[in-house]
Amino acid sequence: MPDGIGVKIGGIVKQPFSEKKHESEHSANSGAPVGLFDSGVGGLTVLKEVIKQLPHEEVVYFGDTARVPYGGKSSDEIIKIDRDNINLLLRHNVKMIVMACGTSSAFGLRRMQDEFGKIPILGVIDPGAITALSVTKNLKIGIIATEGTVASGAYDAAIKSREEKAEVFSAACPLFVPLIEGDFINADETKKTAKGYLQELIKAGVDTLVLGCTHYPHIKHIIAEIMGPAVTIIDPAEATAAETKLILKKFKLINPSVKMPHYQFIVSDSPAKFVETGGRLLGRQIINIAKETA
Amino acid sequence: MPDGIGVKIGGIVKQPFSEKKHESEHSANSGAPVGLFDSGVGGLTVLKEVIKQLPHEEVVYFGDTARVPYGGKSSDEIIKIDRDNINLLLRHNVKMIVMACGTSSAFGLRRMQDEFGKIPILGVIDPGAITALSVTKNLKIGIIATEGTVASGAYDAAIKSREEKAEVFSAACPLFVPLIEGDFINADETKKTAKGYLQELIKAGVDTLVLGCTHYPHIKHIIAEIMGPAVTIIDPAEATAAETKLILKKFKLINPSVKMPHYQFIVSDSPAKFVETGGRLLGRQIINIAKETA
Repeated sequence: MPDGIGVKIGGIVKQPFSEKKHESEHSANSGAPVGLFDSGVGGLTVLKEVIKQLPHEEVVYFGDTARVPYGGKSSDEIIKIDRDNINLLLRHNVKMIVMACGTSSAFGLRRMQDEFGKIPILGVIDPGAITALSVTKNLKIGIIATEGTVASGAYDAAIKSREEKAEVFSAACPLFVPLIEGDFINADETKKTAKGYLQELIKAGVDTLVLGCTHYPHIKHIIAEIMGPAVTIIDPAEATAAETKLILKKFKLINPSVKMPHYQFIVSDSPAKFVETGGRLLGRQIINIAKETA
Repeated sequence: MPDGIGVKIGGIVKQPFSEKKHESEHSANSGAPVGLFDSGVGGLTVLKEVIKQLPHEEVVYFGDTARVPYGGKSSDEIIKIDRDNINLLLRHNVKMIVMACGTSSAFGLRRMQDEFGKIPILGVIDPGAITALSVTKNLKIGIIATEGTVASGAYDAAIKSREEKAEVFSAACPLFVPLIEGDFINADETKKTAKGYLQELIKAGVDTLVLGCTHYPHIKHIIAEIMGPAVTIIDPAEATAAETKLILKKFKLINPSVKMPHYQFIVSDSPAKFVETGGRLLGRQIINIAKETA
C-alpha cells in the first residue's frame, strides 16, 4: 500500500488529525457516498477494488458513455469534462471524488483540486507511480496509456519527482479503449494490436509496467502474456482504493454503517450497453442505473 | 448519378420549378455556403466530391471532434447531436445541410427534416442505396457501417423499399473510425481488422459493397484489395455530391459567383489534430479553422 500522496484541499495539504484531535470520529456527511467517474467501463476496475477494500461505503459511479473515449481529446476539453463530471457527482452529494480515469487525472487533477477546494479529490496517476517505484528493481518503468495521458507527461513527472534516477518508457495505446468498450477483449485483433504497442517497451527492458488507463486492467491477461513473467504489471486500482481509504480516514469520512451499501450507476448515454458490458466486467449485476447528462 | 431521392421540406416534397417558373434564377441566399457535418474527418470524403462537382460553392464544414466517434452512441444521443450540429451550421447562415455522416443520417435524417422545415437537408444513406442498386447484378449487396447504422436498419430499408428482391448483408466495423481518426490507415492492424470484418460478406457472395460510413473511403484501397476485383465498392460521397447539386438547382440555390470559394472548417475540440489528419486526407491545407461548441 503506497502512502505519502497527500490531498491538496484548496491549495493546502491538510493534516486534519493533528488539528482536530478531540472531535467526533465521524464527520456529519460520513454516510454520504464516494463518487467515482470514468469515460466508460474503465473505472470499474477501481470500483471493484473500492468495494473490496471499503465494503461499507456507498458509491455513485458515473460512466460518461456519451463522450467516451477521452484518450484523443485535448487538455482543454478534458478539463471541461472533468468539471462537468465532478459537478454531476456533487449533485448526488458525494463526500469524496475519485477520478477513476487516467486521462482525466493526467490533465485535470491539480486544476480540479484547486477549483473544488471543499471536497477531497483523488486521481490514479500518483498511486500508480508510487506502486511502480516500490516494485521496480532496475528503475526502468514502462507506462501504457492513452495518447492524452502520454502527451501530458503526468506519469513521467510523478515518477521522476520521487526518484530522479528512474527511466520512464511510455507507449500510447489509442485502440485499447475502443477495443474494450466494444467487447473485443478476447478477440484476435486485441492480441495483435497489443503486441505492436508493447514491442518497444520489451526492447527497452522495463521490469515494471503501469496500466496507465483504468480500462487496461480488463485486458491485463493479454498484456501480461506478451510482456512475459519477468515484468510486473501494475494496476493502479488497488493503490487508488487504498489511498481512498486513507483519505476517508484522515477526514473522518469512513461510513460508520455496517449495512450492505448501495451502488448507484449513472451514464450519459443509453444504460443498456453499460449494463451488459459493465456488468460482465464488474462481475456483478448492474441494477441501479440511470441516464443523466453531465 | 442517382435521382428521384426528393427533398422533404416541412414534411412535403416540394417541386419548386413547377410552382415558380417565372421567378429569378437565383434565390436571395444563393451566395450562402453549403453546410456539411460529420463526427470528424469522415465527411471530408463528401466534401472532396462537393468541391469537385460544385467548384463555386462556399462550404462550412463542421467536424464534431469533441464527440467522435458516433458509431456506438444511442439513437437518442445521435438525434440530440444532429440537432446541435444543424443549429451550429445555421448560425453560420448555410443555405443547405448535408449530413455527411452515415450514423447521423441513419438515425436522424427524417427527424431533422421534420424539425428544420425551412432548409433542405440531405443524408448519405439514400444516395448510397440508389447507387448500389444501379450497380449490383446478383442483387446481393453488402453494407459496412458503424454499429449504430447497422442496428438502425436504415440501409436495408432504403434498398428494399426500392427493390424488394435485393438481399442485404451488413457488417458493423466499430474499429474503423478509431483506426482512421487515429492515423492507422496503413497500419497492419487495420488490414487484419478489415479482413475479419469482411469475411462473412465475401462468403455471402455480395457483388457490391457500400461504404456506409463516410470515414471508410479513407481506407477504400484496403477494403477493395480484400474484397477482390469482382466486387464493386460504392462510396456514397459521389452520389451525395451529385444529389446536393440537384437540390441546389431545384431550389435555385446554385451560387452564381465564379470566384474561388472559401472553405471554412469548424471543430468542437482542438483544431491542431484536425488540421494535420484532415489536411492530409483532404489533400489540401486546412487554413480557415476555428473551434466552436455545438
